[in-house]
Amino acid sequence: MNNTVILPRGGFFLSNDTNKLSIFALGGVNEIGKNMYAIQYADDIVIIDCGSKFPDETLLGIDLIIPDITYLLENRDKVRGILITHGHEDHIGGLPYILRQFPMPIYATRLTLGLIEGKLKEAKLLGGTERILIHSESEVQLGSIKATFFKTNHSIPDCLGIVFHTPEGVVVHTGDFKFDLTPVNEQYADLHKMAEIGKAGVLALLSESTNAERPGFTPSERVVGEYIVEEFHKARQKVFISTFASNVHRLQQIIDAAHVTNRKLALLGRSMVNVVTIASELGYLNIPEGMIIEPAEVNRFDSSRVALLCTGSQGEPMAALSRLARGNFRHIEIHPGDTVIFSATPIPGNERNVAQTVDDLYRLGAKVIYGSGSVTGMHVSGHASQEELKLMLSLMKPQYFIPIHGEFRMLHQHRLLAEAVGVEPGHTFILNIGEVVEIRKGIARQAGKVPAGNTHVDGLGIGDVGNIVLRDRKHLSQDGILIVVTILSKSEGKIVSGPDMISRGFVYIRESEGLLDEANRLVTDVINKLQTENINQWSTIKSHVKEVLGRFLYEKTGRRPMILPVIMEI
Amino acid sequence: MNNTVILPRGGFFLSNDTNKLSIFALGGVNEIGKNMYAIQYADDIVIIDCGSKFPDETLLGIDLIIPDITYLLENRDKVRGILITHGHEDHIGGLPYILRQFPMPIYATRLTLGLIEGKLKEAKLLGGTERILIHSESEVQLGSIKATFFKTNHSIPDCLGIVFHTPEGVVVHTGDFKFDLTPVNEQYADLHKMAEIGKAGVLALLSESTNAERPGFTPSERVVGEYIVEEFHKARQKVFISTFASNVHRLQQIIDAAHVTNRKLALLGRSMVNVVTIASELGYLNIPEGMIIEPAEVNRFDSSRVALLCTGSQGEPMAALSRLARGNFRHIEIHPGDTVIFSATPIPGNERNVAQTVDDLYRLGAKVIYGSGSVTGMHVSGHASQEELKLMLSLMKPQYFIPIHGEFRMLHQHRLLAEAVGVEPGHTFILNIGEVVEIRKGIARQAGKVPAGNTHVDGLGIGDVGNIVLRDRKHLSQDGILIVVTILSKSEGKIVSGPDMISRGFVYIRESEGLLDEANRLVTDVINKLQTENINQWSTIKSHVKEVLGRFLYEKTGRRPMILPVIMEI
Repeated sequence: MNNTVILPRGGFFLSNDTNKLSIFALGGVNEIGKNMYAIQYADDIVIIDCGSKFPDETLLGIDLIIPDITYLLENRDKVRGILITHGHEDHIGGLPYILRQFPMPIYATRLTLGLIEGKLKEAKLLGGTERILIHSESEVQLGSIKATFFKTNHSIPDCLGIVFHTPEGVVVHTGDFKFDLTPVNEQYADLHKMAEIGKAGVLALLSESTNAERPGFTPSERVVGEYIVEEFHKARQKVFISTFASNVHRLQQIIDAAHVTNRKLALLGRSMVNVVTIASELGYLNIPEGMIIEPAEVNRFDSSRVALLCTGSQGEPMAALSRLARGNFRHIEIHPGDTVIFSATPIPGNERNVAQTVDDLYRLGAKVIYGSGSVTGMHVSGHASQEELKLMLSLMKPQYFIPIHGEFRMLHQHRLLAEAVGVEPGHTFILNIGEVVEIRKGIARQAGKVPAGNTHVDGLGIGDVGNIVLRDRKHLSQDGILIVVTILSKSEGKIVSGPDMISRGFVYIRESEGLLDEANRLVTDVINKLQTENINQWSTIKSHVKEVLGRFLYEKTGRRPMILPVIMEI
Repeated sequence: MNNTVILPRGGFFLSNDTNKLSIFALGGVNEIGKNMYAIQYADDIVIIDCGSKFPDETLLGIDLIIPDITYLLENRDKVRGILITHGHEDHIGGLPYILRQFPMPIYATRLTLGLIEGKLKEAKLLGGTERILIHSESEVQLGSIKATFFKTNHSIPDCLGIVFHTPEGVVVHTGDFKFDLTPVNEQYADLHKMAEIGKAGVLALLSESTNAERPGFTPSERVVGEYIVEEFHKARQKVFISTFASNVHRLQQIIDAAHVTNRKLALLGRSMVNVVTIASELGYLNIPEGMIIEPAEVNRFDSSRVALLCTGSQGEPMAALSRLARGNFRHIEIHPGDTVIFSATPIPGNERNVAQTVDDLYRLGAKVIYGSGSVTGMHVSGHASQEELKLMLSLMKPQYFIPIHGEFRMLHQHRLLAEAVGVEPGHTFILNIGEVVEIRKGIARQAGKVPAGNTHVDGLGIGDVGNIVLRDRKHLSQDGILIVVTILSKSEGKIVSGPDMISRGFVYIRESEGLLDEANRLVTDVINKLQTENINQWSTIKSHVKEVLGRFLYEKTGRRPMILPVIMEI
């Protein structure tokens, strides 16, 4: 036995000495949203997910953020395709933008593909995109990498975890998951398959960290259904209920509650209609015949026989529930005594909008059920809490661990959980986007970077709004702009017209005539003085005007508007 | 006995038939912060508090919001003074701005006055302001209104509730309060006095609603002290702890924890130094001799012998803890193994900043205790929960009730609590700012409005930034500005110079030459065409340029920059 060679796990014999396995994220680590990961072996790159995220309040005017795919564009010939774990925006929202730059084949399950196809159709990209339908038992060969799959529980049906069989060993990507042992619609997770994968040996695990700060075990989705039915029973008038349109399990439970309480159901809000249509066409929603009615029909029924399923659970100002709360929705009004249920917990950053909507609803006299789902019972998370994360780690028993989907503190807490269940210290990699973990002969190390970053979508522009434009927007938003237009005569060396002052977002001109008159005199003096001294480079004149005017205005108003001297010469 | 006249409560005999009692808010109802209330009887107006609040993200560039005091300015001769319930910003923050417009006498307790004087000194208003020191046993006659006081518990010492004895009856204003039966520093509330006030008869109660949505009874401040001591004991290295500087009880408990664990204490952050100085000078903080050290001295002590009390519990980017987390604080570094405690719950809207700070701290290797105080034990609220609000209502037994301090849903919940403990339906008034409750001969009704609103502070300007300026800032922040400068010759009827395009916050000019060249041609064509047609009113030319250019740019970029045509004629 002394001569036995201990082989590194993961298939040393298949490995080519010069080849290596690389794992990196183009989005989704040290951030929430915009998920995009890559597994590369030799000349084969496989992508997982292509999400978007919303900008924070510092990125003024930006509509959406998607991953920077420079690395993929530079390695076009190596990219074998993109596997999608599930149909949430933070996993599919980037597709219409990325595919326009770089068409590649998409692999996804039925519901996920249905939702993606809706997006691609809108973006006029459906025809040009190769789409491959997969399911949990599929095997996909992508160059030297083979992908197999396992079912997981999450707040949308048809979710997959992915197993990558590479010459270097097995890499598992969980996608989003929880362990829901009493799932809605029989969407059971492949618990036994996960156990087998772990038993056969996992070289590296990428597991999601959204709830890594949360102790315990996330409650089953089914629990929410019981609370909903109870409120539907209690209500004597209309029931409005709002949740994430994509939470198809929740939609099913709301449909069921309407059914057992003998209510018709109206769908309010574009994305709600959209998801219910796709999900029911594909068989993921079971809707009793004749239950769904049009908004215009609502008033034909007794108020105790109607429920309304609305968008707007996050208080989004233009969503159905917010418009209803403001009394601004065609055909439908909320009356005193109606019940309104928020079947969602406000996401940090959305509290103010939700609170505003609740205030408006109370003003209308409604009974409102709102606040954290853990208090109201009206919402549970779709993500694994600490005990479930430990369960996944214990099933997979990975040699190396890469926590994904989360900001640093979540990845950090996930590392602590991993170490608590036996992942060796030093075997966890907390990555920034672009940072590469390289595995060769069973040994992992962090090695180099690929280009990665945020690409801003603004209107039709993808990536054309950079730091200079954003810095200007920031400046303009705080103190506005003061434009100073002057015409100089080249021949005579003096001011022919102006200086004229135009203020936007700084002061209201009619109320600030004194201030601007004084500013005008200052600018005139500066320019005249420079002309007398024969200093007539525009750049010098401009910088003098900026300096003198900036100092004067700050002294008088405590503000620093952008000052834009425009000098024309004739 | 049959002839006994049943008198309305509140002193019918003193009342003059033509006189009446009015109660209204200039700030603090249907909003959080900016508290300012008024009690008026005949020609006597008494003000309660003068707070400020921070603008939400829609009020671009605005620094602070204070109450609109038009009504007080219009009734200068009637205002008898301003009573301050306690020293928090939402109760005193407006003073430096309001007193500049309208000097009036201020009545406050010792600590409150100390904090106010700090503000007035900075604003150079100390000399010109009459300040009257009061305590819980003071009696203040303000025209026909006499004010007496009772002590309450809150997250700052020296808080008062106010009892207004008017010819029409007694009006009670609670200020901010909780019932803390084991308070820190022996700051007991006047429970028996409250009972007596209620027994003698209260015509109207104004009670705070901050936690009216929260069931139960807010835990005692003392509980937090035990958790803090425990962590101080466990820590083997430096302990950084952050809380609201104004929470003097918390500061005392942190000082005590440092004392029992034999640590020196350094104060980091201007407001922390400021409050500790004022509170200890006035005897509200008990600091052991030699305990406080300068930040520069910290490194002279063993790390296990030092604690650091910091500003920044809400993740404010420029506060001490945030700068420490970024490794950007003079003299002091956070090392792996140091402990950092957030002794505060993130206020909605601040979660992202707090999360960013926690991420940075974890990157430094610190042990971080963060999150909701109800989970960590490191924070309790200073405001009454539902059972305490019911206790106050039960003690005061008011005939009429005006819930204050809160957004609509809180006021609404507070009304439900009041009705649950016996306030008659219809006797609760939920007011908007400016709306007046009028009481005459014991009967209250809502009657009319006084001017009220938000006054914006921007730099040195008070109230000069109105809707037009804000709308422009909003527009500029989203899509920037494109300025088109053209010089026309009056005599020749043609373009002499330009059109020149200047973009700020719209597109980056160097990367958009094609777009702007095309725009240039369009504008040239429009102006030339109008000149040919002899249309040369500037307003017509400008509106044509705006329209053509706006349509073109939206088509090409999906954005709508502000378009500013500047036409000069020579």
